[in-house]
Amino acid sequence: MALTAPAVVAYSPSPKLNFRYEEVRIPRPVKENELLIKMVATGICHTDIYVGSLPHGTMGLSYPCILGHEGAGYVEEVGAGVTAAKVGDPVILSYGYCGSCELCSTGRPSYCVDFIPINILGRDGDVFESTDGATQITGKFFGQSSFSSLSIANETSIVNVKGLVKDSEELKLLSPFGCGLQTGAGAVINSGEARPNDVIVVTGLGGVGLGAIMAANVVGCKSIIAVDKIQSRLDLAQSLGATHVLNTSGLAEGDFQSAITTLVDNTRISLAIETTGVPWISMAAMTCLGKRGKFIQIGVPIDQNFNITFPMADLFGNQKILEGNIMGSSRSREFIPKMIGWYRDGKFPVEKLVKFYDAKDVANALHGMEDGSVIKPVLVW
Amino acid sequence: MALTAPAVVAYSPSPKLNFRYEEVRIPRPVKENELLIKMVATGICHTDIYVGSLPHGTMGLSYPCILGHEGAGYVEEVGAGVTAAKVGDPVILSYGYCGSCELCSTGRPSYCVDFIPINILGRDGDVFESTDGATQITGKFFGQSSFSSLSIANETSIVNVKGLVKDSEELKLLSPFGCGLQTGAGAVINSGEARPNDVIVVTGLGGVGLGAIMAANVVGCKSIIAVDKIQSRLDLAQSLGATHVLNTSGLAEGDFQSAITTLVDNTRISLAIETTGVPWISMAAMTCLGKRGKFIQIGVPIDQNFNITFPMADLFGNQKILEGNIMGSSRSREFIPKMIGWYRDGKFPVEKLVKFYDAKDVANALHGMEDGSVIKPVLVW
Repeated sequence: MALTAPAVVAYSPSPKLNFRYEEVRIPRPVKENELLIKMVATGICHTDIYVGSLPHGTMGLSYPCILGHEGAGYVEEVGAGVTAAKVGDPVILSYGYCGSCELCSTGRPSYCVDFIPINILGRDGDVFESTDGATQITGKFFGQSSFSSLSIANETSIVNVKGLVKDSEELKLLSPFGCGLQTGAGAVINSGEARPNDVIVVTGLGGVGLGAIMAANVVGCKSIIAVDKIQSRLDLAQSLGATHVLNTSGLAEGDFQSAITTLVDNTRISLAIETTGVPWISMAAMTCLGKRGKFIQIGVPIDQNFNITFPMADLFGNQKILEGNIMGSSRSREFIPKMIGWYRDGKFPVEKLVKFYDAKDVANALHGMEDGSVIKPVLVW
Repeated sequence: MALTAPAVVAYSPSPKLNFRYEEVRIPRPVKENELLIKMVATGICHTDIYVGSLPHGTMGLSYPCILGHEGAGYVEEVGAGVTAAKVGDPVILSYGYCGSCELCSTGRPSYCVDFIPINILGRDGDVFESTDGATQITGKFFGQSSFSSLSIANETSIVNVKGLVKDSEELKLLSPFGCGLQTGAGAVINSGEARPNDVIVVTGLGGVGLGAIMAANVVGCKSIIAVDKIQSRLDLAQSLGATHVLNTSGLAEGDFQSAITTLVDNTRISLAIETTGVPWISMAAMTCLGKRGKFIQIGVPIDQNFNITFPMADLFGNQKILEGNIMGSSRSREFIPKMIGWYRDGKFPVEKLVKFYDAKDVANALHGMEDGSVIKPVLVW
């Protein structure tokens, strides 16, 4: 059945990201609990760039491979045992999970004990090869490898949106719901359990951070403080519901806390969503919280050797909560339909964040993301 | 109406704890939202000792005062507006709260923004005086000052147990439900959200720690690891449901983690309840957790200048949660009846922890607590 399809293939970084738009082949049949997906669009997330920049062999990572984990498309074929979708159904693709470990079986699939092998390493990734058959290309990144116009996905990565999405144009727009926006919004709703009387700080205004801002606005948090160093992103955050903004360019690290607390007249800051991964910003966000404040780290730390240094008297005396978080603790099949509902009601205007690129123009899309001019590039197939 | 009553009065430490059993007077009437309680018994908690050892003036603390915050008794008189109990009702006394701040009004009264003034400083504490009328004695500690056979309590501190408790003998036994046992059990149930597949570590086996052990046993956690340096407490923990014990006497700090993980054959440790406040034990408990593990600090830190040093890569990479906690996040009027139900079913055998003392023998009760031979001394009035 060897199918061919255009894809964005990640080669071993040399030394930087090495993505190439080219034809690939899917030489093997769809297996049990798998689906063949014809992609309409795929959002690009910083995790694609992060993983694609890791040296070959890191944690078992194998190049060439096909990344992409914010896919959306239509089901072309289903393997044995699949119940999540039928041929022709529109789907949004999200992260995968084993479904049987103690974290999955207690409703916490984003903390699946096999999250890394399933999602980052693409366990069972024998999906693609070069068109001449000479090179194996790893697939199943996040159970989907959606930087390919045609891909084999695991059933756990499938969110069936039949009846929820109007047409393929809308499906393209909603493709980033699978990761970035779900992560930011989920952190606010699921882990942060945000309430109308919350005062929330969101540091970093990429797709994840702006997803958090929009979710806080959906909840109606009384103050929503957006923090970034790029003014256009702060302006965008305000148009999405931020009540206060803080531009950190030129701000001394030690001045962050007083700048934030002054912004909100010293009212108790109850929730901090940290998406930058920058050590001093993480520390400042933990510190600026008031009593029973919750800090949620969802940005991948840029320094893997960084140690948090935090007074026990502050953790205990103010009963704070410090949390590392994946995917906003979302269960995609529940949370993505919820996000679509907000979008439908005009409360989650993802169209303000998305810029579409022909998949061939992946280099431009990456460039726009790197220079900060584009929040959420989406490749169209 | 000047009433007199025997009480344990805390005088300014000189330099150690200075408790005296003596007669006091209640010179003023019961006011709005207050109740006069005839105490049957009062548990002694480490917080009584901790606060009673602070110098005069700390945070506004004023000696002489009457401490005690695990009182149980019968309502003698009610002030205007009281609805929580009627004259003659048996009550267990717990912490107080304002009821109107944003944390109280969102169901989190143990994080009341006025917790310290209401509970530690005994706001509105003009309850007692010396029998000669010459000395004002501060009351309302935890809204109750139950180290007095007769005391005026705030309504928020009242848990009405009419219909739940058989007689005054049982009421005496259950007096420690108001703080220590509620704190330990609440941390496991409310904040830890313990489940049968949890592997839980409890460090420190006083009343709080053993409350946690009993609650973990009620839930049916698959492994319950009890940690202390006193063998008799470890033995008691085993009789209460601990599946594994670790005696830290003679254990090098660096060996804690491997000792714990070896005990449970490297299964994922999912919950750590820390009651000792000892820095290295807190750090070891955070570190030994597996993926999505939650650390809950409920013991008052013994070193207020201690800084937690924790790898961001561990917090984020393992999606851990580090939390400071008060009163086990319990809402006493819901949680104490739940504990009484467990006790009634034989699942929460508080009688194994309690030793009764005539209130006159407070010095002996304190001595037993300090030398580790008594878990929960209860003064009987």
